[in-house]
Amino acid sequence: MARARWGCGPWLVFLCACAWGHPRPAALGREDVRNCSTSPPYLPVTAVNTTARLAALRQQMQAKNLAAYIVPDTDAHLSEYVGKHDERRAWITGFTGSAGIAVVTLAKAALWTDSRYWTQAERQMDCNWELREEVGTTPIVTWLLTEIPAGRRVGFDPFLFSVGSWESYDLGLQGSNRQLVSMTENLVDLVWGAERPPVPSQPIYALHEAFTGSTWQEKVAGTRSQMQKHRKAPTAVLLSALDETAWLFNLRSNDIPYNPFFYSYVLLTDSTIRLFANKSRFSSDTLKYLNSSCTGAMCVQIEDYEQVRDSVQAYASGAVRIWIGTSYTTYGLYEVIPKEKLVTDTYSPVMVTKAVKNSKEQVLLKASHVRDAVAVIRYLVWLEKNVPKGTVDEFSGAELVDKFRGEEEFSSGPSFETISASGLNAALAHYSPTKELHRKLSSDEMYLLDSGGQYWDGTTDITRTVHWGTPSAFQKEAYTRVLMGNIDLSRLIFPSDTSGQVMEVFARRALWDVGLNYGHGTGHGIGNFLCVHEWPVGFQSNNIAMAKGMFTSIEPGYYQDGEFGIRLEDVALVVEAKTKYPGTYLTFEVVSLVPYDRNLIDVSLLSPEQLQYLNNYYKAIREKVGPELQRRQMLEEFRWLQQHTEPLAASAPHTTSLAAVLAASTLATLACNV
Amino acid sequence: MARARWGCGPWLVFLCACAWGHPRPAALGREDVRNCSTSPPYLPVTAVNTTARLAALRQQMQAKNLAAYIVPDTDAHLSEYVGKHDERRAWITGFTGSAGIAVVTLAKAALWTDSRYWTQAERQMDCNWELREEVGTTPIVTWLLTEIPAGRRVGFDPFLFSVGSWESYDLGLQGSNRQLVSMTENLVDLVWGAERPPVPSQPIYALHEAFTGSTWQEKVAGTRSQMQKHRKAPTAVLLSALDETAWLFNLRSNDIPYNPFFYSYVLLTDSTIRLFANKSRFSSDTLKYLNSSCTGAMCVQIEDYEQVRDSVQAYASGAVRIWIGTSYTTYGLYEVIPKEKLVTDTYSPVMVTKAVKNSKEQVLLKASHVRDAVAVIRYLVWLEKNVPKGTVDEFSGAELVDKFRGEEEFSSGPSFETISASGLNAALAHYSPTKELHRKLSSDEMYLLDSGGQYWDGTTDITRTVHWGTPSAFQKEAYTRVLMGNIDLSRLIFPSDTSGQVMEVFARRALWDVGLNYGHGTGHGIGNFLCVHEWPVGFQSNNIAMAKGMFTSIEPGYYQDGEFGIRLEDVALVVEAKTKYPGTYLTFEVVSLVPYDRNLIDVSLLSPEQLQYLNNYYKAIREKVGPELQRRQMLEEFRWLQQHTEPLAASAPHTTSLAAVLAASTLATLACNV
Repeated sequence: MARARWGCGPWLVFLCACAWGHPRPAALGREDVRNCSTSPPYLPVTAVNTTARLAALRQQMQAKNLAAYIVPDTDAHLSEYVGKHDERRAWITGFTGSAGIAVVTLAKAALWTDSRYWTQAERQMDCNWELREEVGTTPIVTWLLTEIPAGRRVGFDPFLFSVGSWESYDLGLQGSNRQLVSMTENLVDLVWGAERPPVPSQPIYALHEAFTGSTWQEKVAGTRSQMQKHRKAPTAVLLSALDETAWLFNLRSNDIPYNPFFYSYVLLTDSTIRLFANKSRFSSDTLKYLNSSCTGAMCVQIEDYEQVRDSVQAYASGAVRIWIGTSYTTYGLYEVIPKEKLVTDTYSPVMVTKAVKNSKEQVLLKASHVRDAVAVIRYLVWLEKNVPKGTVDEFSGAELVDKFRGEEEFSSGPSFETISASGLNAALAHYSPTKELHRKLSSDEMYLLDSGGQYWDGTTDITRTVHWGTPSAFQKEAYTRVLMGNIDLSRLIFPSDTSGQVMEVFARRALWDVGLNYGHGTGHGIGNFLCVHEWPVGFQSNNIAMAKGMFTSIEPGYYQDGEFGIRLEDVALVVEAKTKYPGTYLTFEVVSLVPYDRNLIDVSLLSPEQLQYLNNYYKAIREKVGPELQRRQMLEEFRWLQQHTEPLAASAPHTTSLAAVLAASTLATLACNV
Repeated sequence: MARARWGCGPWLVFLCACAWGHPRPAALGREDVRNCSTSPPYLPVTAVNTTARLAALRQQMQAKNLAAYIVPDTDAHLSEYVGKHDERRAWITGFTGSAGIAVVTLAKAALWTDSRYWTQAERQMDCNWELREEVGTTPIVTWLLTEIPAGRRVGFDPFLFSVGSWESYDLGLQGSNRQLVSMTENLVDLVWGAERPPVPSQPIYALHEAFTGSTWQEKVAGTRSQMQKHRKAPTAVLLSALDETAWLFNLRSNDIPYNPFFYSYVLLTDSTIRLFANKSRFSSDTLKYLNSSCTGAMCVQIEDYEQVRDSVQAYASGAVRIWIGTSYTTYGLYEVIPKEKLVTDTYSPVMVTKAVKNSKEQVLLKASHVRDAVAVIRYLVWLEKNVPKGTVDEFSGAELVDKFRGEEEFSSGPSFETISASGLNAALAHYSPTKELHRKLSSDEMYLLDSGGQYWDGTTDITRTVHWGTPSAFQKEAYTRVLMGNIDLSRLIFPSDTSGQVMEVFARRALWDVGLNYGHGTGHGIGNFLCVHEWPVGFQSNNIAMAKGMFTSIEPGYYQDGEFGIRLEDVALVVEAKTKYPGTYLTFEVVSLVPYDRNLIDVSLLSPEQLQYLNNYYKAIREKVGPELQRRQMLEEFRWLQQHTEPLAASAPHTTSLAAVLAASTLATLACNV
């Protein structure tokens, strides 16, 4: 898991944000949150004064005859994480949480965010802003209909709206006599002015071929082949998501936190390759690598990033058909292409092709997970020794595991902000500690670590939950049921092309059985040194069907508000299953290789099949990680691994092997015969 | 299950029609199918000469400047079953199968149907028609683009197109320079002329209040209350599905085979109730029951059925907003309402309200299932005695079970055409025997019976599969795994508002485990003397979430092409589940009460939980059906019931109760101590 946002992976963590339960803080008497009901209002030191910013924005709105202006939290590529200079919503509101949409009218200003962020918003916003504790377009549209008079205009930046979000605002306002107006000049940028952080300018580099599954020429040829086979005969593919460009050309940079991407678009036709990016960022070697000095079908023409809208519009004026994936195309490009010239799918052919890893990419991703397991195991071993001393906190722990990962070969930093959460903090979705705000780790509390790394060969993401003391019976039951869900989904055999959405219930059933559940999704795709939440693979309704060669996380959880949180997350490869009767069936091969916490497993709850699966998984961990630890002479970690992957024995009626019982019975009989 | 069609229940049986495997018959040397490759073509006696009909249709097309005309298989209410006078596709093609779309151009004529019907189509169509072995809009559009030149027009009857199907044709033809033209006058009707069967004229009657859950006034008031609460403030609800009208007014007739409905539409506003139907079909008592002589808010104004389009168009010219369910509204009404005056949901508020049965409706539906079980048990007992004599065939069997149902109190005929299929015929989806074509029942073959009844208190639908001799090990395994799926889904505990789509995999897992599966849906809603496939309840992607008070069928199966077919179908009520930890959880209570075939159950495959569930279900059958059999002095059936619901004992390692084994072990020990 990681922080949730629309974008790189529109990782819809929340089935229901409220399921996590974040009670609104009572402002009275609290010093850390604002209190707008007193006169003058009480503002904590963390609140940002937005009066001048809002006044400037409203001036722009009036100049453009707008009654309202919508400020989303995305960038022009609908990225999961956004660069500093794209944090418009944070700048205008003061609120820095990753999810939230602001709307400013001439009289009011409001922020919509989910329960994870209510407290943070009350700490960071001044009293210019009202906090709306709702999610989705509908409450925003309902508010707009109340706040702005009929006949007035609502402005938005089309580059910050997906086609789908534009449609939902448009539908909501239909027939209301309020007009939704696309404004290509962003009004927040106009008032942000010189304070706005600069756009990135670091080099864009080619990934070494040892870390790529195919050459960019092969990928371009493959995409063109899909264009030719398409019954609507598109003449071009337009790519807007940053991981599409990174993958297609095997290029990387670091414009986006945790993601090795660079700002770019691609317009690929049968005879041309147009890459919209900042040309000054390419070295001469990289330009040569891209054949950028020629003009043939296999030459990449680098054009100015800012020209993309005009260029697409100019191209669309011809006898063409442009193939787009609507999920990652902004309305800013969509609106300049005549509808009859669009060939639309939910995901672009590049996004769909990238989802299935070829055999080299599989080997690379698996290798990164072995090294990643070493880093996590080092950390768990270290915690086991140091937590009882009382010297470890969530933040220092997060720093240490990031450091351990950084020491692994091919490391390129964390793949998202490490979630290191002790006790009740683990029940907060996507909690991350800070240098200022963190909790001490203790043998009396559960501890949840959700973290991952970027390596040149692969991206990782794993969650383990541990307890070094004596867990309560309920904690053990909840942990075991989360584990049972993880196992039931991991060992599922399913027909090829089954959608993840219909199979993720297997991760929940053991919890449902006793009236427990979790309020987030069950997994997401992952890339080779690309997104940690790589769409369109996963278990949500907008994911594509599972196919051999895909990688997905599997991550059920359970959260007891105010007490503890559990999540067990592994990355798994979709592989062929061998079935008794012939057929094309698939299953998962888990590639995350860190044992679960024996201290929290109630073996009596496991079915014989679950127990057998678990012991086989432990065997695989020993076989794959053991030699790596030995090779590096990490003997303490090796001993820990052996100890924590010792086969578990059935311990209760449900799981006691009948053979064992029969043997005992036979012994008894034999004994009497002697 | 039953025959699949879009309509009353758009019961999407086929995940993949090909999964059933109906190999195309080799025409060579066969006398029952056409052979268009010889000169002259060979036509079986069953083929219909459509030359004159097609010539007449093409004359109409030319007069209207149409290059193609589409003839779907629906009626103006998108009903599951259509009346004789709506069988336009059957008349123009000769092909009488329930599913299939015809398209006629000036030069060609083609029928698209799925594999179930390929043989039937080859038997019934002459060589004017080409058979297209594909399903869905895409292949039809692709064909149209090849067959008709750019600039030409494609005609269709908007009353036979759902909004969704119109959209998909429209999208497919977009940008192709072929125009889709709505023609309100049906061209097939014009050429069918006097031969066309008349529209029904039998009385429309009010259901006795003993069989209704609420009065029509309560239902109208409830619908109006939903209009008032809707944030888009609709001024009217437009109802197009026939079961909506039947349910809303507690009225019935029998215009549609197997469905007690009458042709009608409703336009319900805050102050008026307009029922579009044939007024001459109401008795004076029924008119009085409807308050049809007054004009107040609780008075039903009956208007001419044929006037609906003009009336809706006239109403839509005012300052109004019309709420529709797009699934059951045809393009014929949709196109006369300005878009900004539409309030659209997938299903109308009546459809959604009807889906949840109130406590009286639940009692009624359950009672009908007890009597239905008696009829089915009578039939199974009779078969057990008579099949070995060799005197029973599929058709006479179907007639007998229909007769037994007909003898039950409140019976109003079968709820669909009885599927009575022996041996390999059971592997054909929706096979029904005919007087001419049927197979003898035998102790050497499996036999599948899928049947149901219409009763004034409820509609039923149950499938049992039996074998009176010695089934093969594979047959037993497949049967047991189908049963395991039925049990796993029936005993599932799930959070309130879980969609059926994500839980139906529990009905498949036991099959998937060994590489088996079935190619149809897992269940559908069912009504109180309404549709046997009552939308929007069920396990498909277009069904709404499960809620307490809904009824659904649960019907996994397995089909071995050319050999046998298994399906085990029960109707179940969604009820609250008691869980260890508090929460709003639901589960199913099965209300179909007929035991499964012990002869086909391999108990060793069942988990202890599955076995316990099965024995509890048998206990419920005894408690609910036993007294009814005794009351009627059906002693033979009572004995059969006791025998077939005897608790099953665990018989193999996996399911042997440890307690039993321990007891044995103790005995052994004790024995030696004696």
